[in-house]
Amino acid sequence: MTLKCDLQYGKGDASYKLTRVGVRNVRKPVVVHREGLGETLNNTLSCAIDIYVDLPADQKGSHMSRNVEVLNEVVDESIRHPITAIEDLAADICRRLLVHHEYAKNAEVHISAEYYKVNKTPQGRDTFEIYTLYAGGTIVRDGPLTKTVGVRAVGMTACPCAQQTVTEMLEYSGDMPVMSHNQRNVCTLMVTMPEDVSIEADDLIDLVEASFSSPTFELLKRPDEGQVVINAHRNTRFVEDVVRQVLDRFVKRYTDLPDSVQVDVVSDSEESIHKHDAYAERTATLGELRAENQ
Amino acid sequence: MTLKCDLQYGKGDASYKLTRVGVRNVRKPVVVHREGLGETLNNTLSCAIDIYVDLPADQKGSHMSRNVEVLNEVVDESIRHPITAIEDLAADICRRLLVHHEYAKNAEVHISAEYYKVNKTPQGRDTFEIYTLYAGGTIVRDGPLTKTVGVRAVGMTACPCAQQTVTEMLEYSGDMPVMSHNQRNVCTLMVTMPEDVSIEADDLIDLVEASFSSPTFELLKRPDEGQVVINAHRNTRFVEDVVRQVLDRFVKRYTDLPDSVQVDVVSDSEESIHKHDAYAERTATLGELRAENQ
Amino acid sequence: MTLKCDLQYGKGDASYKLTRVGVRNVRKPVVVHREGLGETLNNTLSCAIDIYVDLPADQKGSHMSRNVEVLNEVVDESIRHPITAIEDLAADICRRLLVHHEYAKNAEVHISAEYYKVNKTPQGRDTFEIYTLYAGGTIVRDGPLTKTVGVRAVGMTACPCAQQTVTEMLEYSGDMPVMSHNQRNVCTLMVTMPEDVSIEADDLIDLVEASFSSPTFELLKRPDEGQVVINAHRNTRFVEDVVRQVLDRFVKRYTDLPDSVQVDVVSDSEESIHKHDAYAERTATLGELRAENQ
Amino acid sequence: MTLKCDLQYGKGDASYKLTRVGVRNVRKPVVVHREGLGETLNNTLSCAIDIYVDLPADQKGSHMSRNVEVLNEVVDESIRHPITAIEDLAADICRRLLVHHEYAKNAEVHISAEYYKVNKTPQGRDTFEIYTLYAGGTIVRDGPLTKTVGVRAVGMTACPCAQQTVTEMLEYSGDMPVMSHNQRNVCTLMVTMPEDVSIEADDLIDLVEASFSSPTFELLKRPDEGQVVINAHRNTRFVEDVVRQVLDRFVKRYTDLPDSVQVDVVSDSEESIHKHDAYAERTATLGELRAENQ
Repeated sequence: MTLKCDLQYGKGDASYKLTRVGVRNVRKPVVVHREGLGETLNNTLSCAIDIYVDLPADQKGSHMSRNVEVLNEVVDESIRHPITAIEDLAADICRRLLVHHEYAKNAEVHISAEYYKVNKTPQGRDTFEIYTLYAGGTIVRDGPLTKTVGVRAVGMTACPCAQQTVTEMLEYSGDMPVMSHNQRNVCTLMVTMPEDVSIEADDLIDLVEASFSSPTFELLKRPDEGQVVINAHRNTRFVEDVVRQVLDRFVKRYTDLPDSVQVDVVSDSEESIHKHDAYAERTATLGELRAENQ
Repeated sequence: MTLKCDLQYGKGDASYKLTRVGVRNVRKPVVVHREGLGETLNNTLSCAIDIYVDLPADQKGSHMSRNVEVLNEVVDESIRHPITAIEDLAADICRRLLVHHEYAKNAEVHISAEYYKVNKTPQGRDTFEIYTLYAGGTIVRDGPLTKTVGVRAVGMTACPCAQQTVTEMLEYSGDMPVMSHNQRNVCTLMVTMPEDVSIEADDLIDLVEASFSSPTFELLKRPDEGQVVINAHRNTRFVEDVVRQVLDRFVKRYTDLPDSVQVDVVSDSEESIHKHDAYAERTATLGELRAENQ
Repeated sequence: MTLKCDLQYGKGDASYKLTRVGVRNVRKPVVVHREGLGETLNNTLSCAIDIYVDLPADQKGSHMSRNVEVLNEVVDESIRHPITAIEDLAADICRRLLVHHEYAKNAEVHISAEYYKVNKTPQGRDTFEIYTLYAGGTIVRDGPLTKTVGVRAVGMTACPCAQQTVTEMLEYSGDMPVMSHNQRNVCTLMVTMPEDVSIEADDLIDLVEASFSSPTFELLKRPDEGQVVINAHRNTRFVEDVVRQVLDRFVKRYTDLPDSVQVDVVSDSEESIHKHDAYAERTATLGELRAENQ
Repeated sequence: MTLKCDLQYGKGDASYKLTRVGVRNVRKPVVVHREGLGETLNNTLSCAIDIYVDLPADQKGSHMSRNVEVLNEVVDESIRHPITAIEDLAADICRRLLVHHEYAKNAEVHISAEYYKVNKTPQGRDTFEIYTLYAGGTIVRDGPLTKTVGVRAVGMTACPCAQQTVTEMLEYSGDMPVMSHNQRNVCTLMVTMPEDVSIEADDLIDLVEASFSSPTFELLKRPDEGQVVINAHRNTRFVEDVVRQVLDRFVKRYTDLPDSVQVDVVSDSEESIHKHDAYAERTATLGELRAENQ
């Protein structure tokens, strides 16, 4: 028996286009092979994937199962031929979506995965730290494909303003940085670019971690713990400073990228002295950032 | 001792504008008085509030505490003079932000709160159901204020396609709607408009609930439970249909609103047959929707 | 037509008793009246309620809708006669559950709600701060009813060990407390007792807040911010200290409570120097705590 | 310079024992090698790990960093010698904790990880589905070690009672199962046992999935989708039935396990007709379950 439900191709009772139709939070293991990647510990990434295409006004439904079929194809292929970066996977999925959804004008994919990377404490001890990788792709039929590479890292900020206030209140005039409030800062950097441009997620992680008052570490024995605290207080940063540090490092590091690259930086500070978070964000093209940095 | 930390007014080490700087998830109780609102049960709304202003390139930090000062002012006033709608509160906060942050060119506020509303089961039993209210405001200095009214409701959809497939597989030819998969659908409707236009959040809730296969209820005795199931299966809807139903009801209900009103509808279906969600979304101006509905 | 589904009373295909059967996360607004409670801002508490009864081996199903019926009864009554404490509501629900579920031997109720309370900053400024209230009840048929009153508060700890390490590393010999890492600490205190004993949730909140290195506040102008930071660093606490401070204050404050009272304290420290949390917990009867405190 | 902060060994200001002190949500990648495990896709499990030891009354602090040191040791070893099951890792960590925390009387470890497993749709198509694995260990100094193996699976239930009510309301007398409400059911099975007993997590997953009205699948083409819906409606289950089905399959499958084995089953039904969840739970020893099943 060949079953066919063609309801999707029929006309819905209300004819409006839909901007995005798809599936969210599909979970798939993806096999990755990248040199210098902490390879053994990241060779299978457990990815959360969102997939969308648009839907014309005269079609009742999108063929939802085709989204997961496309996913299964690329995941199966990754087992035989490990991919090198999840942004390439996102681009690959985008292209296949337009083939499978012949009625769609554009397609969009978002992938996120937990990721481990080797780091070094101030005293030189090796650690594995956890981050989140993001990747995305958008494509317009007969148009170019745009891809996104992003990272999320958790670090630490110490407040310059509270430090100055305390210095005044305690009338301290020595050269030791005094106490301040410090807390977890969660910073996300997303870079959207033409398909032929490449950026290493590992480099973005390094760049974000250098922008905190200090990176944080899972294991800190006594002298390392003291050093992280001292480093953070010698290097106080507002939540705004973290965003600007990321922007500045990005502009200086990627001098070869085209002006059209889109850069989004978000910094969220889980204030130790408040129950709410402080927040800063910049959304700009690389061209705009370069102009401001003259 | 007059303590002053003027670090914020100083110049940061990297001069980039910031798009949004502020505080997130500040929790405040707001006293509301609205007739016909299920008044006793909603006279204090526990609001989660996000506040942002922009920051010029030559200023190191935003004055974060001013955001909470503004919030405290409007909350204190609400105790003496209960407000009638949280979107008015959002608009009020926006204006005050530009006064307190003399360096900012624009301000943005988002508020969300849990909300209870009287509803009726198919058999006519009164119930209190829970929803989420959203309100927002954005303002550009010397420019107009735009406000947002939004609602989130949880209902139920039954799938038309699986129903047709099962009908074929079981070779059923009677007139009873057969089984299908059905599940929670979470639908959000956000309307952004000029300040002088008004929309009742209660009306938006009614409009969204009418767009599911069936609303859901906290208490269903036997005949009501059966009726909800029958209603949903006589009224099958794709996740796409829910969005289009909301759009269509909105276009027909609000004929007096200007074309510039922005309408965003999201429907998320927590598929009973899958571990992932199905999703549909439309983002459009009311003018665009009216043109498609000719 | 009288519809009856008696499947629940039938025998299931596998005869095992069930420990707990019920509904979770039912949301209800409850009207509360308590003097000195920040009354205007807490007169409606939006409660999340879990309800369970046990189920004998020879009965297929529990009558789930009776749980919500009981809830609706007590919520409706609270509109006409506001309750004074949600632990009384939990006790009331417990008793009614055993009436409605004639087959059950025991019943259990958990309630949580967001709650605002007036506090004072170090400089004496009034603030409203957010907390979580917990209440619970358990009853055995023909046996006594036990109730739970609990609170959750977010405060701040500064680490004594990192402070000492930094003092040594910087060879500082003055009398100013030096920098350390500090962070949000989330502390929960749950007290379970016979029904005729009473404890004020407000007192528990005060007791928990006094046990941090410092309470935290939503609005801190400059001198208050500096004072909170100084207070926390003069009053350094391990995550373990917070639990012991709560225990000690509790033992000293509630000398009249019976030894059988159960005390559970949990402290969770969102470490600013790590990506993971530090944690400490004590579970004991008041009698055990008194014996340790000789 | 040898830095030493011996504050932890000092006496705190309030002398109470602490039940559990440790670290939570430490994230570590663990290399696993198990035959027949969908090996390529699970060779690195990203684990969330909680570690606790008790603390005597006369010691101020636990040595938190030793917990992470122990973790790093076992993770490093897993890179060279992949482990075969995370419950063995939990047991290993428990033993080492008592060595490193010479003052502790007991130790406790919890591990969870996302896990993919091959499954087959009704029509025989291969799929990869996502589950959660749990593992745990507890040890008392000079006493035995107890370990836990657990799984969490998402499936589907269709309600037998609503089906019967609808059948009556529509006066249907054919032999087709009629419509009902159906929804996601999240079921967790945890088994705690002596160290020398072994259970395969894969077997527990199979056992839980057989206890739903139907398993769910990420990809269902038309006939598979119809078949899943039909299977679920021919196999209606209350949330209570899911727990009892799991118990019954467990008792029949594991006839060799000792009576002392602890079995905990939780089933949570995300009701499509309500905004709240239905819930059922059994906590028992295998001996108790065997006695009830006579």
